[in-house]
Amino acid sequence: MKGLVIAQVTIIPTGTANPSLSRYVAACFAVLKEAKDISYELTAMGTIIQGPMERVLELIQKMHEVPFTQGSQRVITIISIDDRRDKAITIESKVQAVHNLVGKTNSG
Amino acid sequence: MKGLVIAQVTIIPTGTANPSLSRYVAACFAVLKEAKDISYELTAMGTIIQGPMERVLELIQKMHEVPFTQGSQRVITIISIDDRRDKAITIESKVQAVHNLVGKTNSG
Amino acid sequence: MKGLVIAQVTIIPTGTANPSLSRYVAACFAVLKEAKDISYELTAMGTIIQGPMERVLELIQKMHEVPFTQGSQRVITIISIDDRRDKAITIESKVQAVHNLVGKTNSG
Amino acid sequence: MKGLVIAQVTIIPTGTANPSLSRYVAACFAVLKEAKDISYELTAMGTIIQGPMERVLELIQKMHEVPFTQGSQRVITIISIDDRRDKAITIESKVQAVHNLVGKTNSG
Repeated sequence: MKGLVIAQVTIIPTGTANPSLSRYVAACFAVLKEAKDISYELTAMGTIIQGPMERVLELIQKMHEVPFTQGSQRVITIISIDDRRDKAITIESKVQAVHNLVGKTNSG
Repeated sequence: MKGLVIAQVTIIPTGTANPSLSRYVAACFAVLKEAKDISYELTAMGTIIQGPMERVLELIQKMHEVPFTQGSQRVITIISIDDRRDKAITIESKVQAVHNLVGKTNSG
Repeated sequence: MKGLVIAQVTIIPTGTANPSLSRYVAACFAVLKEAKDISYELTAMGTIIQGPMERVLELIQKMHEVPFTQGSQRVITIISIDDRRDKAITIESKVQAVHNLVGKTNSG
Repeated sequence: MKGLVIAQVTIIPTGTANPSLSRYVAACFAVLKEAKDISYELTAMGTIIQGPMERVLELIQKMHEVPFTQGSQRVITIISIDDRRDKAITIESKVQAVHNLVGKTNSG
């Protein structure tokens, strides 16, 4: 079953004079607000996106372009992709599966 | 100011016959439940930990050992560390800073 | 200048009974042998690819599919992309620039 | 068998005015030149280090401190660790194992 992947992307602009990166992250994240066909979630270390592989990579490319339009001349982008084909997974179901197991372990 | 870092760790056991990894992730995550001196959050793509660098790496090493006790013979661990020293950041403040900016952008 | 990016990809098949991953890595790597328009290099921790962003991501997608054809049901792929637009960089020039500086530091 | 791990570290200083990062990478890399008890290799996307887990993490922490002494106020460090315990692996043997298999595949 070739379905949805769950990916995380972290976009790191370099050669910016200020150590604050939130205005870059916000502008990258805004790209996703226009994408109605995917699910996503912002975390402290990146953005998690769920959708078909092609679409996810297309959006990540758009996000990666954003800091260049804001003055950065070098962008380092880190992507991790979890693609499971024996069963459907979602951003929520992955977290829930772990919490369920941790709960069981501790309830002894 | 050398203070707290925010790190993300993803522990990937390999050579396990089943594609489900949640029992490994849950056992790794349980290590953190005993650590009262750090903050942490489980996401769909890893675990985010906030604390002093030494302590965070010590806990990650403990987490990394767990799948070996569960039968895995090869573990691949991915860590990213965000260490900002001009101002204090937290797991919550990083996410909030971006949401505030995205809100402003969209409220036009 | 929007030119070539340098990317690293690590493809991790999971749910394989054996901890050896080299047959998967070799099959992924073979995808690149047919690509005459890019540069690449195998390291102990991944494959480094230099080329236009679109082409690099297209090849990484092809590589990511390979372990599924070999029986894996879950593949975790880690990508990092270095995209510098103020000057041209190559796989060789990046390493050389550092070695030149380390040489100077040590020659005192 | 708990032996040597192979790790890759990429240290990304942010808030630096110039997109060139080689002087930071060179200074981080110089930390390893003083470490006689490990093996290491510089690639275009990071530094690969082979050694006992504790020692590798100790050296990575030292490397991570370097850009702060050079004026950066925020450093993002990405680490991946490959820890295989069913057989000994080295930086060279991992690459060689793949090249051997690719050779066989292609030799018709």
